[in-house]
Amino acid sequence: MKNAPFTFELNPPEFIPSRYDNHITRRLSAMKGQYSNAAAFEAMLSKEDILLYEVYELKLPEVAGELLHGISIVHPGKVGDEYFMTKGHFHTVLDTAEVYYCQKGEGYMVMETPEGDWSVEALYPGAVLYVPPCWAHRSVNTSLAEDLITFFVYPGNAGHDYGTIEDQGFRTLVVEQDGEPAIVDNPRWTSPPVK
Amino acid sequence: MKNAPFTFELNPPEFIPSRYDNHITRRLSAMKGQYSNAAAFEAMLSKEDILLYEVYELKLPEVAGELLHGISIVHPGKVGDEYFMTKGHFHTVLDTAEVYYCQKGEGYMVMETPEGDWSVEALYPGAVLYVPPCWAHRSVNTSLAEDLITFFVYPGNAGHDYGTIEDQGFRTLVVEQDGEPAIVDNPRWTSPPVK
Repeated sequence: MKNAPFTFELNPPEFIPSRYDNHITRRLSAMKGQYSNAAAFEAMLSKEDILLYEVYELKLPEVAGELLHGISIVHPGKVGDEYFMTKGHFHTVLDTAEVYYCQKGEGYMVMETPEGDWSVEALYPGAVLYVPPCWAHRSVNTSLAEDLITFFVYPGNAGHDYGTIEDQGFRTLVVEQDGEPAIVDNPRWTSPPVK
Repeated sequence: MKNAPFTFELNPPEFIPSRYDNHITRRLSAMKGQYSNAAAFEAMLSKEDILLYEVYELKLPEVAGELLHGISIVHPGKVGDEYFMTKGHFHTVLDTAEVYYCQKGEGYMVMETPEGDWSVEALYPGAVLYVPPCWAHRSVNTSLAEDLITFFVYPGNAGHDYGTIEDQGFRTLVVEQDGEPAIVDNPRWTSPPVK
């Protein structure tokens, strides 16, 4: 008997899968160095190691041909002016894509390539976003009231490479300016070396 | 510049993507030999070559690492006792999976392996179905009133193999019995040869 088909449910308003194998939780302490305002980060962390985001995933063989999928939930909040966001990563197998289908909330997917091309796309209920092969990606929740919830699918062999993007962060930041989300340059970011 | 990220919208009640490249339509005439009741099929076709189902797809490179995705819409109706359904197929690259996320309607995914294992899973709004690598799959709309609408994602290199399953059809049929959907054996189906 081959690996058998299975079904689970995604129900509003929470969209937590009725069946899952992995529940990944990321707290503020796991995001050290990711937010521009280090002082705001430390001040916040000294009060509480708050939960920033969660991922529910179905366990499947991590090989090409399989499709890993699940739900990502980014909670609302800010560190300084910067909205709560995921750590963001390239796939270890760089030329693998990812599909996101936004279920709830509002935000952006911040993306970039190893060559320094960048893209920011809006996420809102009903939006399907294609992250092509080779694009690092990070979800940002720009609502200060509700969760940003996305359904995601990526190839089983993709893997996660957090290190490459961690050194200087993404090229683009999403911050609150005059009460509205704004897309701004990351002052820490520098051009990749010409190869 | 690499292949750029893009977004489109899926909005109820139709869920037709706000952006798409391929719109595939399958009419009754394309399903010759697929329904058990050949007399009912011919009688129906003599009246009208009715539209059974539609697929909206985004065009992407058909290579491993990319993820083809879109919307499948199976319209309501029956040929004899058998509900409207998709043609059904294996992937040409057999060991590639597919993820379905039902948006609207009610029905079943009928699945089987080359070895003769079979599975039938219910589709309803909020249901996410994993079709593992090596399973042929066909959507069946068991509502006689509304469309069965699913969002799907599969690997770019998967391809479609319709021929293998076409000879004797799927092992399992979904038919109306006493006004209710019933899962029954396909009388034309015989065991695969022992290898």
